[in-house]
Amino acid sequence: MSKNAAGREIPEVIAGMNVRPYAGPFAVTPSGRAVGPKLTVNKPRSEKVLKSIEQAIDAAGLKDGMTISFHHHFRNGDYILNNVMEVIARKKIKNLTLAPSSLSTVNDAIIPYIEQGIITAIETSGARGNLGRFLTEGKLAKPVIIRSHGGRARAIECGELSIDVAFIGAPCCDSYGNINGLDGKSACGSMGYAMVDAAHADKVIVVTDNLVPHPLYPVSIPQTQVDFIVVVDSIGDPQGIASGALRISRDPRELLIAEYASAVIEYSGYFREGYSLQLGSGGASLAVAKFMKEKMQQQKITGSFGVGGITAPFAEMLEEGLFKVLFDVQDFDIPSIQSLKKNPNHREMSASFYANPHNRGCIVNNLDVVILSATEVDVDFNVNVITDSNGVIMGASGGHSDTAAGAGLSIVVAPLLRGRLPMVRDRVHTIVTPGESVDVIVTERGVAVNPRRQELLDNLKEANIPLVAIEDLHRTAIGLAGTPEPVPVDEACIVGLIEYRDGTIIDAIRRPL
Amino acid sequence: MSKNAAGREIPEVIAGMNVRPYAGPFAVTPSGRAVGPKLTVNKPRSEKVLKSIEQAIDAAGLKDGMTISFHHHFRNGDYILNNVMEVIARKKIKNLTLAPSSLSTVNDAIIPYIEQGIITAIETSGARGNLGRFLTEGKLAKPVIIRSHGGRARAIECGELSIDVAFIGAPCCDSYGNINGLDGKSACGSMGYAMVDAAHADKVIVVTDNLVPHPLYPVSIPQTQVDFIVVVDSIGDPQGIASGALRISRDPRELLIAEYASAVIEYSGYFREGYSLQLGSGGASLAVAKFMKEKMQQQKITGSFGVGGITAPFAEMLEEGLFKVLFDVQDFDIPSIQSLKKNPNHREMSASFYANPHNRGCIVNNLDVVILSATEVDVDFNVNVITDSNGVIMGASGGHSDTAAGAGLSIVVAPLLRGRLPMVRDRVHTIVTPGESVDVIVTERGVAVNPRRQELLDNLKEANIPLVAIEDLHRTAIGLAGTPEPVPVDEACIVGLIEYRDGTIIDAIRRPL
Repeated sequence: MSKNAAGREIPEVIAGMNVRPYAGPFAVTPSGRAVGPKLTVNKPRSEKVLKSIEQAIDAAGLKDGMTISFHHHFRNGDYILNNVMEVIARKKIKNLTLAPSSLSTVNDAIIPYIEQGIITAIETSGARGNLGRFLTEGKLAKPVIIRSHGGRARAIECGELSIDVAFIGAPCCDSYGNINGLDGKSACGSMGYAMVDAAHADKVIVVTDNLVPHPLYPVSIPQTQVDFIVVVDSIGDPQGIASGALRISRDPRELLIAEYASAVIEYSGYFREGYSLQLGSGGASLAVAKFMKEKMQQQKITGSFGVGGITAPFAEMLEEGLFKVLFDVQDFDIPSIQSLKKNPNHREMSASFYANPHNRGCIVNNLDVVILSATEVDVDFNVNVITDSNGVIMGASGGHSDTAAGAGLSIVVAPLLRGRLPMVRDRVHTIVTPGESVDVIVTERGVAVNPRRQELLDNLKEANIPLVAIEDLHRTAIGLAGTPEPVPVDEACIVGLIEYRDGTIIDAIRRPL
Repeated sequence: MSKNAAGREIPEVIAGMNVRPYAGPFAVTPSGRAVGPKLTVNKPRSEKVLKSIEQAIDAAGLKDGMTISFHHHFRNGDYILNNVMEVIARKKIKNLTLAPSSLSTVNDAIIPYIEQGIITAIETSGARGNLGRFLTEGKLAKPVIIRSHGGRARAIECGELSIDVAFIGAPCCDSYGNINGLDGKSACGSMGYAMVDAAHADKVIVVTDNLVPHPLYPVSIPQTQVDFIVVVDSIGDPQGIASGALRISRDPRELLIAEYASAVIEYSGYFREGYSLQLGSGGASLAVAKFMKEKMQQQKITGSFGVGGITAPFAEMLEEGLFKVLFDVQDFDIPSIQSLKKNPNHREMSASFYANPHNRGCIVNNLDVVILSATEVDVDFNVNVITDSNGVIMGASGGHSDTAAGAGLSIVVAPLLRGRLPMVRDRVHTIVTPGESVDVIVTERGVAVNPRRQELLDNLKEANIPLVAIEDLHRTAIGLAGTPEPVPVDEACIVGLIEYRDGTIIDAIRRPL
């Protein structure tokens, strides 16, 4: 047991795995080569369309002990993961590693498969609901591995996450496996996470409810990466895949946080012609979009690119010419999907282009400003987005640590309190994003700038915002709500590992007592 | 020495390399994995733009014995290959393997570097002019390896061709390495060949004469694959990169061949709603485009996709809705470049998507009809496109064997005689495309159908064309021009190896005496 560079005690070996401790945002220089899929051949005019998921699983040669992957573009409307797992369970295949790009509450349905030993390891971005609680209780044979979107792309490309069979839900697929997410009743927009799986998995099975004539274009995932296709009635619930345009918050606290965050951007030194921006999908983030739109219009500033998961306000800013281009890894609402389909300046990107730290430079490296959320932050600016105040897994790493590391200015927006709980803590329960990559924390009671960024603090003195030390925010929070007890945990029982984007371990999740 | 499946005697070991003999178009099942580039890291806001090609070569760590690659989208207008080789020569780096996607007469300039031992091996699609003659004389330390476009993509992806440093000429490049070929004074259109190099080379150096603000889009080659950027005055001669729209032939013999070839398509059984087509860029091919356009209009047939290197007649057919989509690996003329830029149904593709036989199915697998040229054909339907009647290297393998293997109907168009030389021979001097993948040979004196395709022969009986046996074509040719003597060669001196698209050796080029 030794402390990593984020101050967390991490065993050197966990569940038989050698652990590389986190050593700083850019401390790791990777070695070795990117790993491609097994080579194969497909003869002209081969038939790729099979009759059932079961037949495709047989054709792919799925066996005990293998690793299977899924993508979460259908979010809480996803039918694919649960349905495929049901077939796998019927076939009595065991001891699988499940490696979806993320998990949603709809995936509570897989709990029985964990109990039955069908799934014995999970590598994902996050988990929620009953499944999150179940994983936190240590019911999985191995600790769940939590990766950022960029870290997952990295792990797949370098072979640390070697996918035997990728299952890809396709809103639109032609008879030879060209895919996009633009059309059909289950349209999800960007297929950015799935693009990495398809490029590297040994076998790729596409499940679609919308088979179209060859050739489909534009191509998100090409036929050259797809082995088999299965047509089913429905791959998802449109209501769960994408919402209508989200309303901007009317919560006065969220609006105040958004106002402060917008002022931080405006006075930071990064708000200039050609700046780039990533927004979150939370209430305060969407309100920031509204305020920034007004500032850009008033000051006649045009941004270069917007990036990340895309929401309607961002798509509107593109449409109005406030940004030249959007790079889109995932769509959250119907207007964004429509924009990706219709606006040639709205471009799909893979998770590797988005955020993989071990290529020649992902797009977050060019990002000026990112707005991020948090379940809690601490006086070292560390951010937790994975566990709640009881130490239970209920969130996802997402692009949080990727964008924080890449952006010139990373701003975390969070209420100072949630109910009676202070969100600024002495020490977050779980570190997902290390404080040294977080520049500003914005709450409704004050804005704290990381002391590493003195020049930023100087710039912000001109903004009419309540600048405070992070310790002051912490004091205010505990003054209002009292000092919360740390969540008591079984130190010996590690149920999850938080992998930093470079493959090192930044924190461990221990079973709450 | 043993005979391969094309009947050619190939030594088992050549220049220290173990030779796998050609065994049939789909006889090889590949093993192993695709190989990616060395992993690396690029910190946010890193500077990729270096001052000179020399500085980039130093930064890339280019050393004696390494393999360097180039792409031939600038065709005979290319400045990059010669200029980079000049810098390498000045730096006294030796013993390099040169692996461009093809070579043009402009590359005669590299002959001195071969003589000086700077280049000791070449792997390419073809060579022409003095360089072709020079290579045929065996002046290179090792036999030149000739690959098809699909075969090259395969070799790069599986690691048989491992590129240490790829040099990529970019008509348009932003400050972090996003590239396309659509704009700038050296616009070349598709970057399809270079896409494979960029995705797999350990170091990627971009040379551009048009550096634009980040982010450039659409992205042909992403920033995630580019290490260094060098800005120079000019990367090519626009006159040599792309011609104006080529005129349709007025040569009565070419027009007759085109008329017969069009009738073959019309009556073959493949000419139906949704059919797909690849055309060549030669005179007869362009005339076929004209005739097919008329037939499609008259019979109200719309094709699904056109594919390959693109010329103006194909771009026009797309514009007129006669094809739904074009997949474009290379552009031959200015109208095609303009079409790629403006028409959203004109899509860029990589050489791997185009023709790599060892992925899950390249687009030539879906091709119905291809029109191909030949320097000579023989009574076994074998096709030579690499050596002339003196056995001298003067052509390129290109997509010839790829499309012949993939297409439902492969049609070779060639005059029966060129000058006083019969083009239908008893035995071609060099096999590039094996006869078992060639369906029809069209000359101005008759049309021969491969006896393997009896159903096709039956269909064509309804077309008003002179169907003859291939032996009849041969007899007519030698009746008119006499029986040519085989080119005498030094059997022991192999100067070139013709690699079939799957990595086996289909033929060897021996030094003419």
